[in-house]
Amino acid sequence: VEKLRGRVTGFLNKLKKIAKDDPRRIAHSCKVGLALTLVSFSYYVTPLFDGFGVSAIWAVLTVVVVMEYTVGATLSKGLNRAFATLLAAFLGVGAHQIAILFGEKGEPILLGLFVFILAAAATFSRFIPEIKARYDYGVSIFILTFSLVAVSSYRAEELIQLAHQRLSTIVIGVVTCLCTTIFVIPVWAGEDLHKLAAVNLDKLASFLEGLGSECLGEKVGSESLEGKPFLQVHKSVLNSKPTEDSLCNFARWEPGHGRFRFRHPWKQYLKIGALNRRCASSMEALTTYITTSAETQATKEPELRQKIRTACLEMSSESAKALRELSKAIRTMTAPASANPHMAAAIAATGELRSTLSKDADIADVLHVATIATLVAELVVRTQEIFGS
Amino acid sequence: VEKLRGRVTGFLNKLKKIAKDDPRRIAHSCKVGLALTLVSFSYYVTPLFDGFGVSAIWAVLTVVVVMEYTVGATLSKGLNRAFATLLAAFLGVGAHQIAILFGEKGEPILLGLFVFILAAAATFSRFIPEIKARYDYGVSIFILTFSLVAVSSYRAEELIQLAHQRLSTIVIGVVTCLCTTIFVIPVWAGEDLHKLAAVNLDKLASFLEGLGSECLGEKVGSESLEGKPFLQVHKSVLNSKPTEDSLCNFARWEPGHGRFRFRHPWKQYLKIGALNRRCASSMEALTTYITTSAETQATKEPELRQKIRTACLEMSSESAKALRELSKAIRTMTAPASANPHMAAAIAATGELRSTLSKDADIADVLHVATIATLVAELVVRTQEIFGS
Repeated sequence: VEKLRGRVTGFLNKLKKIAKDDPRRIAHSCKVGLALTLVSFSYYVTPLFDGFGVSAIWAVLTVVVVMEYTVGATLSKGLNRAFATLLAAFLGVGAHQIAILFGEKGEPILLGLFVFILAAAATFSRFIPEIKARYDYGVSIFILTFSLVAVSSYRAEELIQLAHQRLSTIVIGVVTCLCTTIFVIPVWAGEDLHKLAAVNLDKLASFLEGLGSECLGEKVGSESLEGKPFLQVHKSVLNSKPTEDSLCNFARWEPGHGRFRFRHPWKQYLKIGALNRRCASSMEALTTYITTSAETQATKEPELRQKIRTACLEMSSESAKALRELSKAIRTMTAPASANPHMAAAIAATGELRSTLSKDADIADVLHVATIATLVAELVVRTQEIFGS
Repeated sequence: VEKLRGRVTGFLNKLKKIAKDDPRRIAHSCKVGLALTLVSFSYYVTPLFDGFGVSAIWAVLTVVVVMEYTVGATLSKGLNRAFATLLAAFLGVGAHQIAILFGEKGEPILLGLFVFILAAAATFSRFIPEIKARYDYGVSIFILTFSLVAVSSYRAEELIQLAHQRLSTIVIGVVTCLCTTIFVIPVWAGEDLHKLAAVNLDKLASFLEGLGSECLGEKVGSESLEGKPFLQVHKSVLNSKPTEDSLCNFARWEPGHGRFRFRHPWKQYLKIGALNRRCASSMEALTTYITTSAETQATKEPELRQKIRTACLEMSSESAKALRELSKAIRTMTAPASANPHMAAAIAATGELRSTLSKDADIADVLHVATIATLVAELVVRTQEIFGS
């Protein structure tokens, strides 16, 4: 009993954490419930029921499958569903008209053939990347509706009326979903995408800040850096691509809202995202380097070492400031003018470092090839890891 | 007209390429058509139709939504759908029994309340990562069926018979899907996952081979390395995480097949995948380093330079061989014994490099900090890129 109780409290805590991480999740759950209850009223109220008949259940079905977390996703699914149903219903009725010309025996064979050809062609079209990204759901609904209309046309007497009822109930379902997502605590994919870009920039900045204070600072001892939190912060940036891609896909369906105009340049966010990931990837390389290779004890040339160290500190802190300013600029949607001096300082420090390093001919000669060697050695370590797994 | 023709041929070539890249896609499209045609026969054949009534369209619906590219995905969706429908139908009938106790007026209100609570709770459960990964579709079908049963119970006279018909038609749909996916040219997610691991290892190896021949070789001039194909080959490895995750998820549903026993350790592939991506990330860092920083002209110490260069060449070629052997071992599912000597040689070369570098005290002192400096300077460049976007 104790064990069970522990498990239950553990589970409840987990639920609490999920809700706390993003309170809009609770709102979303209630919104789904609300939309379903609203749409089921079309069934309970007798005059409405008489109009739609058993087709009213299609409204319920539509709400369940169309209702998504963000406005963009709901819009994309809803429009896909509505237009795909319309198109497929027309084609289905057309197929039926052709099929009845072939008599009692020919009809099912011809209908089966039509279903086979259209289903195969539509399924194949889902492998085209552009269709997969934006119309995948629509194609699947197209196959569904076409098959349903073509197949049931063999038995149903009032095909046109059936198609009409289905279409209007689906429209009711889609409209219910859209009203609930847009007017009750809306979750905009565009806003999330925007925030994600700012948050990721902040993460990169805090990596650089951590690098400056924990690793390049004056008093840093030889203690192990492994397990320091700042060395983990860039990892989530590295894996942000799928989230970003789907948010961007949904944002393109959303109408203008808040400070976002219609046709906001969503693709820009993908570009920034890709650059962020490249930056995070360089950070990953630096992380593995500083955690795996031990520093040699200083014997000579403390001056040069000191110089390089200072340059590093300067570069990382100025870059961090520039990133923070950029992230602030994104949040407030202003031009990032205040980031300019920090960026310039970081670049200046890089130039200084280069000239310092190239002054000493002995080192300059070897450094390039030695750095490559260090990075290749890194690859050997990685390979060994793969080998050992 | 000319323009239109050009577009059409362009589109056709694209389709051809998609089909050529993976011929199983055509097979899959035909399989979907086949399954749909098979299941629609249950509608055309009169004795079957009499048994199922209008519910027969549910079999068609099930086939359209359950049929997926890989066996694992189809199994996962099919089982999710069948069990979720069963559970929801029971609960729905139960909710109906409770609701009728409250009389004519109380019934729709209570039903609406039930729908609201269950839909909200089930929607919230989809935010739990474990449920999201494996049972997302099941939960959505659960909400769907429960709402349908609860709502239509208000009007339908023969609820139990309706539920029974629905369930048996869904089972027919699922069984049709499974038979077509498993027995007609099956596409196993486990096999794809397995191949992906081997292909990714090969990609990493060809990066290292390219590095050796194009960048560290004897005769390499100062020509720009940008645009060399081997510098792009690791990029697809970096972005392989979503594909791998979903394949692994599906592979866990698949029964034993071919050389894969039941309960194959699919999670191992995720581990290898993560290590592969780390390796690719280090490659990315090396790539940006060698493409952006110019080599200084050799003035002195050609001997040391030469030594380092040779060590690099050794490390990269031996690692590449080890990776090739590993990939071959995965393909043939044998122990990678032949990779051992290559790995050992690569590690030995690394050790030698380390000792070469540490012999020269002047360089050893500065090298560590200088490498960090180079990597930090890299980060400044990245930041600047983000800034410039």
